[in-house]
Amino acid sequence: MNFKEKLRERAELINNTLEKMIDEKDVPQKTIYTAMRYSLMAGGKRLRPVLALSVCDMLGGNPDDVLPFGCAIEMIHTYSLIHDDLPCMDNDDYRRGRLTNHKVFGEAVAVLAGDALLNYAFEVMTKAALEDPENVKAKLEAMYIIANASGASGMIGGQIIDLESENKKISPELLHEMHKHKTGALIKASVLSAAAICHASKSVMDSLVRFADMLGLAFQIKDDILDVEGNSELLGKNIGSDASNSKNTFVTLYGLEKSKEMLEDYTEQAIESINAFGEKGSFLKELANYLLERVN
Amino acid sequence: MNFKEKLRERAELINNTLEKMIDEKDVPQKTIYTAMRYSLMAGGKRLRPVLALSVCDMLGGNPDDVLPFGCAIEMIHTYSLIHDDLPCMDNDDYRRGRLTNHKVFGEAVAVLAGDALLNYAFEVMTKAALEDPENVKAKLEAMYIIANASGASGMIGGQIIDLESENKKISPELLHEMHKHKTGALIKASVLSAAAICHASKSVMDSLVRFADMLGLAFQIKDDILDVEGNSELLGKNIGSDASNSKNTFVTLYGLEKSKEMLEDYTEQAIESINAFGEKGSFLKELANYLLERVN
Repeated sequence: MNFKEKLRERAELINNTLEKMIDEKDVPQKTIYTAMRYSLMAGGKRLRPVLALSVCDMLGGNPDDVLPFGCAIEMIHTYSLIHDDLPCMDNDDYRRGRLTNHKVFGEAVAVLAGDALLNYAFEVMTKAALEDPENVKAKLEAMYIIANASGASGMIGGQIIDLESENKKISPELLHEMHKHKTGALIKASVLSAAAICHASKSVMDSLVRFADMLGLAFQIKDDILDVEGNSELLGKNIGSDASNSKNTFVTLYGLEKSKEMLEDYTEQAIESINAFGEKGSFLKELANYLLERVN
Repeated sequence: MNFKEKLRERAELINNTLEKMIDEKDVPQKTIYTAMRYSLMAGGKRLRPVLALSVCDMLGGNPDDVLPFGCAIEMIHTYSLIHDDLPCMDNDDYRRGRLTNHKVFGEAVAVLAGDALLNYAFEVMTKAALEDPENVKAKLEAMYIIANASGASGMIGGQIIDLESENKKISPELLHEMHKHKTGALIKASVLSAAAICHASKSVMDSLVRFADMLGLAFQIKDDILDVEGNSELLGKNIGSDASNSKNTFVTLYGLEKSKEMLEDYTEQAIESINAFGEKGSFLKELANYLLERVN
């Protein structure tokens, strides 16, 4: 199977699992179920769970062990997008080619649908840990990595830096700090939680930390470039929204050319950091290149 | 030590622990830390963790085991209040005698501070389970009870029923359903998660389910009565907000007199359901009576 086929297969497995998870959740109230499902099943690249499954594959772990955690991370990612799109935050009307959650269900329901997805992510992980007494420690470690990355020390901390930097010019250091938390933390947690579940050694962990850090930066730079150069139809959202929200991005700070150089450089560093895994690391390397060239 | 002294002692232990938890959390960004702390340390009765500690005491468990879970529930309760108070939800200006979170920090930060508290609750519980390998199963069970009660199957489901019932007259069945989820679920989870950590037997669990169900209903009825008859200074929030938001309450549906009868009746049933615990249940019985007579 070539890279694209494998990628499609993994995304499909994730979509099917997410669909099953949301459908088997006992939600007595139809509105909240519909609103959660609307955003969770809106497509998207499923990058975070794909990363988790691919790390698992590289390390020879059991994908069934990692899958619930990857899906939980996707729920957390989705909730963060719902809240980010709210009028009091970025006030976006489109996401992944469809109206944003609050445009369809209203703000109050969107707030609660986000809350419910965050909550369900932890419910799913708790259940996975409970059902596997033999690996309970590794699964709790994975959960702790994820909780830490998604909370105030991680993603939410980055969202706040983002909010507070609007309409201000910030330093390159703060821009890096912001993205390390806002986008990078959850990408890193996808990699490291999977590694924890696969009982990775300290030295494997160290390589993966470097891989995830570099990949997270590259991913964000590409996002910033796409917001300027991308095709809004392919992206599924309006382009130029960073500029109209007076956001600080790699492009506003470094310019387009320099940003593209940085993108290539970080991607290369990500790839180098998993050289030690040899042939087994080839999917992750191709994934890094795929993300570099993506159009959405 | 009499009931009031014991209650004060427990609330103090909870306040000190919450303060320690929020202060030791590594939050790189000051705004989010301040906003989380503002609402978490705004006082309140600490009913949910007090219930958890008191069930633990009754069952002869170790309070150190239960405390992190009680505090996590208080974080979840606090996040739900922050989001409930938002302009797109109940649009309240005061809570626990101070301006609501979004009135002080703005809506965007209030959304994120709520998210961060929900997230931190699960981080705290995960850590507590990780650090106690011998009791990891009981702690994961407690976590699962809490996750289930706070999500779309529980509290959030109730909040949605509440939203959708505004400006409509609803049936007594739906009113009970709403409160069973909105307020009852987390009160019940406080009782049952503590019992799970203390390795309670099936029959003990059954008695506690009944106790928690009755207490939750009584608590909500009293809340509805206080919104009509209470003193806004003692309550720390405006009274009459249910009426001005066209909310369905026990008082609007049953009238004040009938609501007071129901309050007494449910309180009595709660007390009866723990008769089997004899002298050991006395604090919980006094707590039920205390909640019946509370002024805030």
